[in-house]
Amino acid sequence: MKVVVDGMGGDNAPYAIVEGAVQAQKEYGIEIVITGPEDLIQKELDKYDYDKSKISILHASEVIGTNEHPAMAIRRKKDSSINKALNLVKNGEADAIISAGSTGAFLTGATLIIGRIKGVLRPALAPIMPGKNGPFMLIDCGANVDCKPKNLEQFALMGKAYFETVMQVNNPSVGLINIGSEEEKGNELTKEAHKLLKEAPINFAGNVEPRDIPLGNVNVLVCDGFVGNTVLKTIEGVAGNIFSVLKEEIYSSFKTKIGGMLLKSVFSKFKKDYDYKEYGGAGFLGVKSICVKAHGSSDAKALKNAIRQAKVFYDNRVIETITEYIENSIADNDENIKAE
Amino acid sequence: MKVVVDGMGGDNAPYAIVEGAVQAQKEYGIEIVITGPEDLIQKELDKYDYDKSKISILHASEVIGTNEHPAMAIRRKKDSSINKALNLVKNGEADAIISAGSTGAFLTGATLIIGRIKGVLRPALAPIMPGKNGPFMLIDCGANVDCKPKNLEQFALMGKAYFETVMQVNNPSVGLINIGSEEEKGNELTKEAHKLLKEAPINFAGNVEPRDIPLGNVNVLVCDGFVGNTVLKTIEGVAGNIFSVLKEEIYSSFKTKIGGMLLKSVFSKFKKDYDYKEYGGAGFLGVKSICVKAHGSSDAKALKNAIRQAKVFYDNRVIETITEYIENSIADNDENIKAE
Repeated sequence: MKVVVDGMGGDNAPYAIVEGAVQAQKEYGIEIVITGPEDLIQKELDKYDYDKSKISILHASEVIGTNEHPAMAIRRKKDSSINKALNLVKNGEADAIISAGSTGAFLTGATLIIGRIKGVLRPALAPIMPGKNGPFMLIDCGANVDCKPKNLEQFALMGKAYFETVMQVNNPSVGLINIGSEEEKGNELTKEAHKLLKEAPINFAGNVEPRDIPLGNVNVLVCDGFVGNTVLKTIEGVAGNIFSVLKEEIYSSFKTKIGGMLLKSVFSKFKKDYDYKEYGGAGFLGVKSICVKAHGSSDAKALKNAIRQAKVFYDNRVIETITEYIENSIADNDENIKAE
Repeated sequence: MKVVVDGMGGDNAPYAIVEGAVQAQKEYGIEIVITGPEDLIQKELDKYDYDKSKISILHASEVIGTNEHPAMAIRRKKDSSINKALNLVKNGEADAIISAGSTGAFLTGATLIIGRIKGVLRPALAPIMPGKNGPFMLIDCGANVDCKPKNLEQFALMGKAYFETVMQVNNPSVGLINIGSEEEKGNELTKEAHKLLKEAPINFAGNVEPRDIPLGNVNVLVCDGFVGNTVLKTIEGVAGNIFSVLKEEIYSSFKTKIGGMLLKSVFSKFKKDYDYKEYGGAGFLGVKSICVKAHGSSDAKALKNAIRQAKVFYDNRVIETITEYIENSIADNDENIKAE
C-alpha cells in the first residue's frame, strides 16, 4: 500500500507531519509519499533514521491556508501540497491521502480532483467518536451544510459500509439525530429523512436525541453537516471546559491537589476517552479513493493514527462496499419507479 | 404580582409543583394560582402550612401529556391544566405562567391563546445557561425548528431586551452560532442572518463556534430552534456522561474513593454549574405575557426558581422592552424601504 501525506497541512506542519509519517512507515511497513517544498521536508526527514526506499518526497511549492476560499485556492494553487497529493491519488500512484490542512480545501479538492463514486450525490465527512458504551460515527460533520433528505439516506448507507468493514460490526445500527424520539418530531429535513431511513436497507434505530449521543448506543449517527459540526464542536467545547475548570479547582488548595493525585488514573483515562488523537482522522466517504482528514492540531501521534486508519480503510475494502451499497440503492429506486 | 402555575405539568407533578409553589409564595410574597384537579392539588397543599389568602386552586379536569400532538391537544382539551392557566393570563387575571409540562403544548398554547407581541414573527424559547465566564442565553432552543434569517434577527433583539433588563447587562453582546468564525461560513440561513445581524441595533459579536459556547464570553447566542435544542441537549448529555463515568471510576477502588472525598467540594461546585435547576426555567420570548418553561424533570427547587424568574421578568418589564425593540426595528425597516 502507498499513502500520500500532505506535508504542509495542519498547525504543526511540516515537523509533526513528517515525524508521524516516519513512525507510521516503521510501524505499518507501508510506502509513504510526503508533498511539500523538497528542501523543507528533507530537512525534517533528516532528523530521523528512516527507510529511504519507503519514504519519498513529491515537491510542491505552494501551501493552501485555512482562511483561503477552498474552491478558489484548489483551482488556482495547482502546485500546492494538497493539490499534488490529490493528483497522485487520482493518477493511481497512491492508494490513500491524508491531510491535516484546510478541511474545505481538502474536501473540495477531493470531490473535484478524485471525484465521487458513481451515484453518490454528496460525499460526507465521518469521524469516529468515543462513546460511553462504544465508539460511534457522526456523518456528516461539515462537508454539506445544507442537505436534502436523500443525502442523509446516502450518508446512512456509507456509514453502514464503513462500520461493517472497518469497525467489524455486523449489521450496525443507524440513527437519525433529531430533537425528539418520536417519528413526527424534527424539522422539515429530519421528518423527510426519517421516512427514507425507515425504508432503507439498514438496521434503523430511529431518532437519537442529542442528549444520548455521548452514550454511543447507536453505531452510526446521521445528520446534515451543520448539525454534525455543531455537535462535534459542542462535545469538544464542553469536555475541554470541564477538564480545564477541574484542573484549576484541583490546583486551588493542598487538599484538592492530593485528591487530584489520587484520581490521576481516572483523569488520564478520561482525557484519553475524549482525545481525538486516539481515534485518528475522519474519513471522507463517497469519493473514489481513500481520504482521511486529520485534525488541524494533529501532533505526530495523531497523524500516525490517521495513516493507520487509511490502512484499515484499504485493507477492508471500504470503497468497494460503499460502491456496492449505493449501486443497490439506486437499483432499488429504479425498481420502485418501474413498479409504480 | 399574581402567577399561575400548571399544577399537572412535569414528571414530578403535582407534588413537586405544589411544594415549589408553596416555597416560592413564602420566599417572594407573591400570589399564586395552581391549576389541576381540585381534590388532588388540595391534598398536596394540605401537606404544608401555607397562606390560604395567597395560594388558590383553579380546577382543571384534564391533563396534556408530552406525547400528545401539541396543537391538537390544546384545541381539544379545553379543560386541561395548561389551557386553564393560559386563559387566566390571557384574561388579565394573572401576570405570568409557569409550566413544567409538554413544551410543545405550552409554546403552541401560549402563541394561540396569549398571542404574539405585535410585529413578532415567531416567539422563541430562551434558556439561560451556565458558562465558564458567565451565564449566556441560547435563543431559540426548540420553538422554531425551521427559521428564516429575519426570525434570527428578532431573536437577537428579544435576547438583548432580556439580558439588559433581567440580567442587568448594559449593551449585551449578541453572537450567531455558526460552524466557522469567518463571515462567509455557514449554511444558507446563517450566512443571510449574519448580514442582518451586522446591521441590527445590537452589540454584534459575529459568529460564535460551538466549541466556544460553554465559555460564556458572549451574552446572547442566536440560532434556529433545531440547532439550539441540539446544542442544549448535547451539553446536557456530555456533562451527564462525564459525571456518571467519573462517579463509577471513583467508586472503583479505595484509593480513588479517598481522592473523590478530597475533591468533594470541587465536584459539587461542578454539579451546581451544570445543574439547570440553579437557573430556573426558560423564558418564552415574543408573546404578550410572561411565560416560563420549567424543565420537565423539575423538582420543587427548580419550580421555585422558575417562579422567581417570572418575578424578575415582571419586575424588570421585559415584555415592554421587547415590544419597544421590535417596534423600532419595524420602523427602521419602513424607513429603509422608503429611502430605497
